[in-house]
Amino acid sequence: MIDPSSSALLTDLYQLTMLQGYFDQGMEQSATFEFFVRKLPASRGFLLAAGLEQALVFLENLQVTPEEIEWVSGDGRFSKDFIDSLAALRFTGEVHAMPEGTVFFPDEPILRVTAPMPQAQLVESRLINLLHFQTLIASKAARCVLTAPDKMLIDFGLRRAHGAEAGLLAARASYIAGFTGSATVLAAPLFDIPVYGTMAHSFIQAHDDEMEAFDHFARSQPGNVVLLIDTYDTEAGAEKVVELAPRLQAEGIQVKAVRLDSGDLAKHAHKVRKILDDGGLTKTGIFSSGSIDEYVLRELLAAGAPIDGFGIGTHMDTSADAPYLDCAYKLTEYAGIARRKRSEGKATWPGRKQVYRLYDQHGRMQEDILTIEGDTQDGEVLIRPYMKQGKRLHQPESLETIRQRAAAELERLPLHLQELGIMPAYQVSVSPALQKLAAEVDARQA
Amino acid sequence: MIDPSSSALLTDLYQLTMLQGYFDQGMEQSATFEFFVRKLPASRGFLLAAGLEQALVFLENLQVTPEEIEWVSGDGRFSKDFIDSLAALRFTGEVHAMPEGTVFFPDEPILRVTAPMPQAQLVESRLINLLHFQTLIASKAARCVLTAPDKMLIDFGLRRAHGAEAGLLAARASYIAGFTGSATVLAAPLFDIPVYGTMAHSFIQAHDDEMEAFDHFARSQPGNVVLLIDTYDTEAGAEKVVELAPRLQAEGIQVKAVRLDSGDLAKHAHKVRKILDDGGLTKTGIFSSGSIDEYVLRELLAAGAPIDGFGIGTHMDTSADAPYLDCAYKLTEYAGIARRKRSEGKATWPGRKQVYRLYDQHGRMQEDILTIEGDTQDGEVLIRPYMKQGKRLHQPESLETIRQRAAAELERLPLHLQELGIMPAYQVSVSPALQKLAAEVDARQA
Repeated sequence: MIDPSSSALLTDLYQLTMLQGYFDQGMEQSATFEFFVRKLPASRGFLLAAGLEQALVFLENLQVTPEEIEWVSGDGRFSKDFIDSLAALRFTGEVHAMPEGTVFFPDEPILRVTAPMPQAQLVESRLINLLHFQTLIASKAARCVLTAPDKMLIDFGLRRAHGAEAGLLAARASYIAGFTGSATVLAAPLFDIPVYGTMAHSFIQAHDDEMEAFDHFARSQPGNVVLLIDTYDTEAGAEKVVELAPRLQAEGIQVKAVRLDSGDLAKHAHKVRKILDDGGLTKTGIFSSGSIDEYVLRELLAAGAPIDGFGIGTHMDTSADAPYLDCAYKLTEYAGIARRKRSEGKATWPGRKQVYRLYDQHGRMQEDILTIEGDTQDGEVLIRPYMKQGKRLHQPESLETIRQRAAAELERLPLHLQELGIMPAYQVSVSPALQKLAAEVDARQA
Repeated sequence: MIDPSSSALLTDLYQLTMLQGYFDQGMEQSATFEFFVRKLPASRGFLLAAGLEQALVFLENLQVTPEEIEWVSGDGRFSKDFIDSLAALRFTGEVHAMPEGTVFFPDEPILRVTAPMPQAQLVESRLINLLHFQTLIASKAARCVLTAPDKMLIDFGLRRAHGAEAGLLAARASYIAGFTGSATVLAAPLFDIPVYGTMAHSFIQAHDDEMEAFDHFARSQPGNVVLLIDTYDTEAGAEKVVELAPRLQAEGIQVKAVRLDSGDLAKHAHKVRKILDDGGLTKTGIFSSGSIDEYVLRELLAAGAPIDGFGIGTHMDTSADAPYLDCAYKLTEYAGIARRKRSEGKATWPGRKQVYRLYDQHGRMQEDILTIEGDTQDGEVLIRPYMKQGKRLHQPESLETIRQRAAAELERLPLHLQELGIMPAYQVSVSPALQKLAAEVDARQA
């Protein structure tokens, strides 16, 4: 059985045809590729790096399995000697990266791979696939967290995430960005993320009577009583909760919260809050879901909606307002010589790079300097070593460590980048050393 | 090792808390759930059903593994007896569905599950996850196919698809919709989809000389010579191809095509076509990639761009202009009684449904009738049986069969729905029998 998530053949065919070409020419010298985002989506002012852990696991275990080799052999495009070399291929290179949870900006590499050309080339598609998606979601989730820093935010997006892996990695990426947890069960055993969940409309509908459904659920999950009240009529549902609560309290069961999932959430929340308070349920919270994103959050908070927590699903797990990043993994050095492409609108900076970050007197990010490795600058060094000779240099970071880093990073953002609107871009300066290198590379390739 | 793609715990926690509630109340009677799309995205006039095969495989193999049971046991939310019932749970129900490749419209179920409540409930999240994504991508890809019916269209989207499964299933869904193939290698061994690929910029950059890179590649892949010419200067690249071609021809190697990946594609294609033709390479095609979607395709074709094939990536694999569908899997019957929710803006039609399709005298779709099962109408029956007592009734359909069905369906679309603009909606009529049932359900639940 081929496992797509770890398969070396989860790649574009051109990687293999190029590898055949490199093999034929003996071009197996050291290559450096860097992963970066070319340009921010219009609705983003910064990005939050995520996905490195999965990228490192992928590289560490890289190999083309016998079953996969069988397919390559039968395909007819490849030579026997090359296929033998493919069967023996492992990742023996170096990785440098920004730690997960780091804020970054366009043109700044968040991952650099230096390895014999075939290895560094083959992994392109999957490395992009892993880094792109989690960075996309962490960056979207960070906007929700910045908008509602004091609210409980739960990832509800599995069902409309793009496949199984997207659902799971969205739970991880949003937790990194500061979400409280996820509704996705597997996020608990796989990532140790807190999971949350109570009931859907079907539970109410399956009962002939809404109050009976509430009662059954409360007795079944006495420590976890969050009742969904909008199946038929939201305010009528709230009245039923008020009626039921004393009977439950008599048995020591508290109604922790009610959930709203449709209609004008601010309006309903105000009415429901009053019904609950008038009924003595001042400690029963209101949780809300249904097409929520950072813009809806901002509106609800501005309207003073008395909502304590939010389930945020589709819009976050698909990053609906910006469903992809303009990112690339580009060759910047081969056989000791810096390289770049100059394609229109897609030119890249050559050489192995480093990013330095300067902070203002309040500890907020002020400016980044993009330069070549070795051109030491003032400021914090953002790109660090992670693998050497194909081995990881550190134990995997815990999600809590990454999450705390992300929280600290969001705090250090310039204030204008903590807002949702379109903002003046953060300053990323290109050092004289890097500009000189680019000019030299162009002169050579002219 | 938990495999997320087949795990019964790739679900929302509320499924498990509800299942505990059903268990406590002995509510294990037969439930019917239907999957449908509530509303089309603004930029869609129809949808193409896809994902049924993966949904059936998931149901057929449904079980909570011992490793997963261990997590559930340790979680603390669930009773021992319930956990035992969960370990024994298998899918024993019925599935009715529209075949993959069928065109459908809002409110029309494309999947109906009838099974004991716990089974039918538990699978909700993953069934939506599977059907939503492939339908989303097949529907987007169909728009590309309708816009450029005579062109070679290749899925290039793996790298920016949302994870491994999304990349693979996008290859499948776009092939169903009529794409020629995919760049994703694993799509060949896993789905028997034709795969395509030649070279990236890194291959050119790794050489000191562009012409040498072309030459090396051509000798290495003599049957597959597509040369990427925009790394430094597109027209200069084309001139080099013209210079190189006779030397290759002398050895029996033909340059099949050149690829453009940046800049004004129509302008470059015209210039490159002239350079190739003037150089005698009239049979060398032009293949193009780079931020292409159906709108760009329409523009390029309107500009008469001499492009023979297109690599379509990010915009299709993320369905960028509509990255999700407003879809649901809703309880429509429990214990023999039809049900629906009436939540604001989210009310659903109750009962087990069937869809009949009427065609005009030219064989084009004219109107669909949504009614309850058993209320026979004129027209083609769209929903058919696929599983009974947990077993599949048919062999899996081949992708070719599904692809041919999709092609026939796209041909039968009303002409206005074959265009890209916003169009008058297709007529889906709700039968008197279904309206009467809804009124009865509401009267009972009032």
